[in-house]
Amino acid sequence: MSRDPRIPADAEAPVEILHKARWLTLKQRGRWEFVERNNPEGAVIIVAVTPADRVLFVEQYRVPIRQFTIEMPAGLIGDQGHADDADIAATARRELEEETGWTCGRIVPLHAGPSSAGMSTEIMHFVRALDLRRIGDGGGDETENIVVHEVPRGEAGAWLRAMADKGYSIDPKLFAGLWFLEHGQAG
Amino acid sequence: MSRDPRIPADAEAPVEILHKARWLTLKQRGRWEFVERNNPEGAVIIVAVTPADRVLFVEQYRVPIRQFTIEMPAGLIGDQGHADDADIAATARRELEEETGWTCGRIVPLHAGPSSAGMSTEIMHFVRALDLRRIGDGGGDETENIVVHEVPRGEAGAWLRAMADKGYSIDPKLFAGLWFLEHGQAG
Repeated sequence: MSRDPRIPADAEAPVEILHKARWLTLKQRGRWEFVERNNPEGAVIIVAVTPADRVLFVEQYRVPIRQFTIEMPAGLIGDQGHADDADIAATARRELEEETGWTCGRIVPLHAGPSSAGMSTEIMHFVRALDLRRIGDGGGDETENIVVHEVPRGEAGAWLRAMADKGYSIDPKLFAGLWFLEHGQAG
Repeated sequence: MSRDPRIPADAEAPVEILHKARWLTLKQRGRWEFVERNNPEGAVIIVAVTPADRVLFVEQYRVPIRQFTIEMPAGLIGDQGHADDADIAATARRELEEETGWTCGRIVPLHAGPSSAGMSTEIMHFVRALDLRRIGDGGGDETENIVVHEVPRGEAGAWLRAMADKGYSIDPKLFAGLWFLEHGQAG
């Protein structure tokens, strides 16, 4: 099979490990440097709307950027090799419960793609959580300190912009979450 | 001033450089490992619609993930310390011209936020390019091999999903770009 001429020669270069730390590894392929999680199955972001039609957001402090962020509930997918839909759904349900105190009846995949394809192999999965039911207070595990925000669906975009104006760091992927909410087939 | 009790102690730990490569540096603060670009001013993503109401996308091969991606035109912001709005606009115009062959009359900021706040300090800026005018063929600089796609605005979301189904890797931030297009004040 002949090689697609649009694929640069670097794509066939061997990968060199520049530094392997506990959670992340810095690698190089040809001229391209990139970071990979040592658990490379990626992360899942959960788009969740309560029965009162409120979108769930979580507020927490992020050490790498030294800022408080607003995010949707999210977590790293398990550590048993390649993640399948069941692993992703299990992670999504667990993180939703731990972070927000809500559980869900169903998890529907929305999209999966790279978070920063020029410098990282990280893949972000978006799922929709459906049939929400309150089971606790949320707030995260013992290492986390999470505040839950429940925002009326129609005000979510304006609320995110207002929180950005207040100095919170807002991952642009959140607006992708809102786009999926407005355009999804998942109700 | 007393410390916000929600800020973990790790936030005050010194930063350790684990490995500095040519483009990226792997760092650690307390228990948190993260990657930083050696030019840490971040990247800009350009939301651009032609006079024929078509959204501009670029197709290219990304070595870190070894896949063809669909992206919006984008580029790294200059290298003179902290980026201001003028630096961001200049980068956006240059990348739009190089990658797509279109230039623009105005650049309007839309949003800025972290691309992956748990593992990277990278900040993504979204801007809207307005008053587009064709000046060339695009395709990127000598190291790039970019195919330009002009997609009717109302079909852009469905087109991205169809390209994902065909095996292209689609950064979820593109759907944020569509959200900004649908909800912006920038026309």
